[in-house]
Amino acid sequence: MTTILRANLIHTPALGRLETIPRGYLVLEDGVIRGLYEALPEEWAACPVTDYGEALLMPSFADLHLHAPQYPMLGMGMDLPLLDWLDAYTFRTEARFADLNYARRVYRRLAGELIAWGTTRVAVFSSRHTDATLVLMEELERAGVTGYVGKVNMDRNSGPAQETTAQSVDETLRWLEACRFAHVKPILTPRFTPSCTDALMAELGRLAQERDLPVQSHLSENTGEMAWVRELHPDCSQYWETYGKYGLWKAGTLMAHCVHSDGREQAAMAEAGVWAVHCAASNVNLCSGTAPVRELLDRGVRVALGSDIAGGDQLSMSRAVTMAIRASKQKQMETGAPFLTVPEAYYLGSTAGHQYFGGGAGFQPGDRLHAIVVDDAALPEPARELCLSERFERAVYLMEKEHIRAVYSEGRQVK
Amino acid sequence: MTTILRANLIHTPALGRLETIPRGYLVLEDGVIRGLYEALPEEWAACPVTDYGEALLMPSFADLHLHAPQYPMLGMGMDLPLLDWLDAYTFRTEARFADLNYARRVYRRLAGELIAWGTTRVAVFSSRHTDATLVLMEELERAGVTGYVGKVNMDRNSGPAQETTAQSVDETLRWLEACRFAHVKPILTPRFTPSCTDALMAELGRLAQERDLPVQSHLSENTGEMAWVRELHPDCSQYWETYGKYGLWKAGTLMAHCVHSDGREQAAMAEAGVWAVHCAASNVNLCSGTAPVRELLDRGVRVALGSDIAGGDQLSMSRAVTMAIRASKQKQMETGAPFLTVPEAYYLGSTAGHQYFGGGAGFQPGDRLHAIVVDDAALPEPARELCLSERFERAVYLMEKEHIRAVYSEGRQVK
Repeated sequence: MTTILRANLIHTPALGRLETIPRGYLVLEDGVIRGLYEALPEEWAACPVTDYGEALLMPSFADLHLHAPQYPMLGMGMDLPLLDWLDAYTFRTEARFADLNYARRVYRRLAGELIAWGTTRVAVFSSRHTDATLVLMEELERAGVTGYVGKVNMDRNSGPAQETTAQSVDETLRWLEACRFAHVKPILTPRFTPSCTDALMAELGRLAQERDLPVQSHLSENTGEMAWVRELHPDCSQYWETYGKYGLWKAGTLMAHCVHSDGREQAAMAEAGVWAVHCAASNVNLCSGTAPVRELLDRGVRVALGSDIAGGDQLSMSRAVTMAIRASKQKQMETGAPFLTVPEAYYLGSTAGHQYFGGGAGFQPGDRLHAIVVDDAALPEPARELCLSERFERAVYLMEKEHIRAVYSEGRQVK
Repeated sequence: MTTILRANLIHTPALGRLETIPRGYLVLEDGVIRGLYEALPEEWAACPVTDYGEALLMPSFADLHLHAPQYPMLGMGMDLPLLDWLDAYTFRTEARFADLNYARRVYRRLAGELIAWGTTRVAVFSSRHTDATLVLMEELERAGVTGYVGKVNMDRNSGPAQETTAQSVDETLRWLEACRFAHVKPILTPRFTPSCTDALMAELGRLAQERDLPVQSHLSENTGEMAWVRELHPDCSQYWETYGKYGLWKAGTLMAHCVHSDGREQAAMAEAGVWAVHCAASNVNLCSGTAPVRELLDRGVRVALGSDIAGGDQLSMSRAVTMAIRASKQKQMETGAPFLTVPEAYYLGSTAGHQYFGGGAGFQPGDRLHAIVVDDAALPEPARELCLSERFERAVYLMEKEHIRAVYSEGRQVK
């Protein structure tokens, strides 16, 4: 089936590159991009066209780090120190997901909101609960959100929802067995080094290697955590090695935060093909620090963005993009490292994440379409006519849910 | 006329103080607060009650620094250095306000959006245009926004919209003559020291003293600007003295930013009763720095918040509040100064601003009501029942326009 979309086409095929086609045509065959055109080629002249008028068709967002069971505590406990926040809110909230009815209600809403905000690819932490994790995957699949979901493993230092090592391994196997979704796949998810025993890490590493499963976790988020990791693993000189020694440090491993990763840790990421997921709002909300994103990029580390709800307080990835810009400006004021431009930050929050899942450079022929259609006509009347790159920038800063008129995920229209 | 509102009453009568009355009553006589009650006193038992159910009734916002004619350029040019941003966007956009039809359209929309976001008191910079400034005042008055508006004075270094000194003075007098609004009053507004000649500053200072008019301007926003001021005024050892020597540094003067105000400048503010207006988003967007808000407060300087559109990219004052919290966390990471808690930041973005205009400590008997009613029932389902202070915090972080169900300004319901 041929689908032809007409709109102002805007994409970010590479870091810092912005390409626009005014009132162009995007042709899909069965949801797969055939091409982008300034004028519609003759062969499709007879096909109906979905015309979005003056709206902007842009890559959809990819949120590569969020905690789904923390959605109910969004915007709460932000004045508490990290450990009190974990005790008063995080562990107790996550424990609620033993209740599958509660999980269903929360996850259905979360999945709907992700699409409403234009996020079509995710890498999500669930809770430790196998069945609630399956509910989460089902609800994401139903709403049209694609990507990875991980049942969380945590067999020490993890409050009331903690598992035993045997439970953690058995439930992981049961979960992997039950994962049968077209667009939502499992990712192994040791919560972070302090909450996983060596035995559990070793089991997960074995699974990752044997079944060729991807891995996600946290890395060098704050200095207290890092000191704790050094205590727990006196044999490792750096945090990343605690994942490395169990086979969890490999191409495609997602590591959230990397706020305090130094040159050596960054080099280890680049060498292994481990991705950094930058979560700007969370890093400042929790007083973790300001991640060295420019430095990571310059060293060849792949970087994507995450909302990190509920350390981050906003599910919207357009806000994660502008927050990443602000964090980079903060970093520039500290170190002189050039801040992220709007096209750079948008690339990190959209195309980079799609590339993590195998996508190409922006709207690339052969890829299934992941896109949002943004109607900026409702924004304040400008003082003069704006060019597309200006309209793009303004949309990134001002986009609210109601401006996102349509969403395409994996080639299908889902909003 | 007696009006009785029932809701969860929440207010911030002083910095860091949060008071709540679950399902309480707020009684107004002709828009003036008579009292807050846990149970409705007998004398009003026969009066009809406007019952907002489980919604939160909280102080409305006060935005003490914004540039109304920059509303059309919201979210644009943020990647440019300050001077290029001024040339490419600011001066050109402001010049458009010679066109009164354009001004009417933009200002009507701006005034409506301020109310929609719960901002009922403002101190606004207009452009240099007398007639457009009067249109702005009229539109604010019509929408129910109260406070101060200033025709901007700028007779040097100000691009295409620059005035001569004589024009600037004459038009200011013509403007003052024409200001006849019940709730929107004039404030003298030298743009900032580099854009006003000594002769103009002297005239404005004379006017301020003779007519007892309030004054607003910018202070110590970035280091380049400060160096420029030192060049222009070699006789002044600090920026603030350039206002002081012309009689513009006085009780109630509003100074936006104060990012780089040192102990001596802060002491001069406290002594004179000059207020600092903290604009956190703008300060990071323009790489100005992080304002020392805790230090200002500790020295006894009065502080309020501003959106500073369009250096700030969001008109919403709830976002200005959370951005101020983030800036203070950034500052804590740098200097150890304790960050602003949610009740502290909310106080600065609401009650402090009302106090600037003569309001009392929160919902105080004798004051005209400035309040918003926030319906948080539409927010994600929490994991357990929340207390009012938790619901308050969550509302501050997650409030979108559609959650603001009603707005009261100067005792009248305006949304």
